[in-house]
Amino acid sequence: MSARLTVWAPDGMGEVRPGDDLATLVGDLLDAEGLTEADVVVVTSKVVSKAEGRVVAADDREQAITDETVRVVATRARPGAAPLRIVENRLGLVMAAAGVDASNTPAGTVLLLPVDPDASARALREALRARFGIDRLGVVVTDTAGRAWRDGLVDIAIGAAGVAVVDDLRGGVDAHGRPLSVTVTAVVDEIAAASELVRGKAAGRPVAVVRGLGRHVPSGWSNDGGARRLVRGGPDDLFREGVAEAYARGHADGVAGLTPRP
Amino acid sequence: MSARLTVWAPDGMGEVRPGDDLATLVGDLLDAEGLTEADVVVVTSKVVSKAEGRVVAADDREQAITDETVRVVATRARPGAAPLRIVENRLGLVMAAAGVDASNTPAGTVLLLPVDPDASARALREALRARFGIDRLGVVVTDTAGRAWRDGLVDIAIGAAGVAVVDDLRGGVDAHGRPLSVTVTAVVDEIAAASELVRGKAAGRPVAVVRGLGRHVPSGWSNDGGARRLVRGGPDDLFREGVAEAYARGHADGVAGLTPRP
Repeated sequence: MSARLTVWAPDGMGEVRPGDDLATLVGDLLDAEGLTEADVVVVTSKVVSKAEGRVVAADDREQAITDETVRVVATRARPGAAPLRIVENRLGLVMAAAGVDASNTPAGTVLLLPVDPDASARALREALRARFGIDRLGVVVTDTAGRAWRDGLVDIAIGAAGVAVVDDLRGGVDAHGRPLSVTVTAVVDEIAAASELVRGKAAGRPVAVVRGLGRHVPSGWSNDGGARRLVRGGPDDLFREGVAEAYARGHADGVAGLTPRP
Repeated sequence: MSARLTVWAPDGMGEVRPGDDLATLVGDLLDAEGLTEADVVVVTSKVVSKAEGRVVAADDREQAITDETVRVVATRARPGAAPLRIVENRLGLVMAAAGVDASNTPAGTVLLLPVDPDASARALREALRARFGIDRLGVVVTDTAGRAWRDGLVDIAIGAAGVAVVDDLRGGVDAHGRPLSVTVTAVVDEIAAASELVRGKAAGRPVAVVRGLGRHVPSGWSNDGGARRLVRGGPDDLFREGVAEAYARGHADGVAGLTPRP
């Protein structure tokens, strides 16, 4: 006995244009293999954004980043280039360049993230459930993000529907009867990462299917808050500001004789 | 045509004890399905640590965390519990509790991370290549980590051999001839995340196989630095300190009239 997942990404998705019906394009792409109960369909935010018309004219990508920024988290000068800006965007996501994408778009345009990727995931889920006649179906919308402390990028979930966003093991015990120290797994982020391994970045495969997730794709799913739930905010976020920014704020307050206000 | 991965995690791995030969245990577990060229075997650091005798007596887990800490990154008080400590450990990994694990170990003991998980991966790779008579084989050693800005935990790679740690697409262009904005993918972290989906936390499946990674598992692999390469250090790490810690340092320096030294 073993637990088993299959993950595949079909070739053949054409260029997606504003106003295209994404569910039809994705459904057509998946027709050959079909979908079955408890499958999860993963799509990149890039194609969701394109279908939703989130391509905007922007000679100046930097201005587009500024427009998408809710809060600057950290910046760093880069020789010969615009400063790196890690910011919180309107979705609450902390990302370099606010998630504004200038690759795989025509010159003179940039691609913004979907307005509400969880809603996009729910809509795509409903359309695919109807088309393929299945009950249990998950949809995950991905984007690519950097991390603090680790080099390299991984895909994460910025939208989700029909699939458990987290696996909450709190209260569980191990084989020795001791509490599990690892308690809440970000399942949809792991699904996003797994899908990237077959989609690739340059291969023109924006859609993947993950089969075998079983209990993570429940019957009778109702909106559980979506991938937005994974955004950590408030006092739980110990890294709301870069070191340089927090230090500078503290230093200025100290020079001014202000009481600390971390 | 489609790109396709299969990921499975066999049941039946028994308890691993100090001094056990991990390669034999893993090989026995995988015998039924066998391994083939370009497979990647994923094992949790927990079983690597157990086989390597990294179980230590520790009535006081907090002391064990202190011992494993190279540098405190951020702390946060928790009502009714020891403070949360996010620290850099001897492997350069920034983790809560330094990666010290008190679940799935006998009472009165804790489990430390392997001394050199990249070396553990290389040793396991060589033994499994010989046993199964294959050339291209990857091994990834995982652990579970929190992230800045996002709730929930995901598995990451803390050791790797035989598999490309990153997929470096710098210099590549998209279908419009524009440079790819996403450039370096942390492949082994995505493999670790994918494997967690089939291993689970409480299911007693510490070993998984990922089949279908193709070019990421090269022939003639030589040591490329391993998962250690993913540790971001120095000036590239904009989040070496929590906000409260950086602010407090700045404030104290400001009060003392010191020149800023972020």
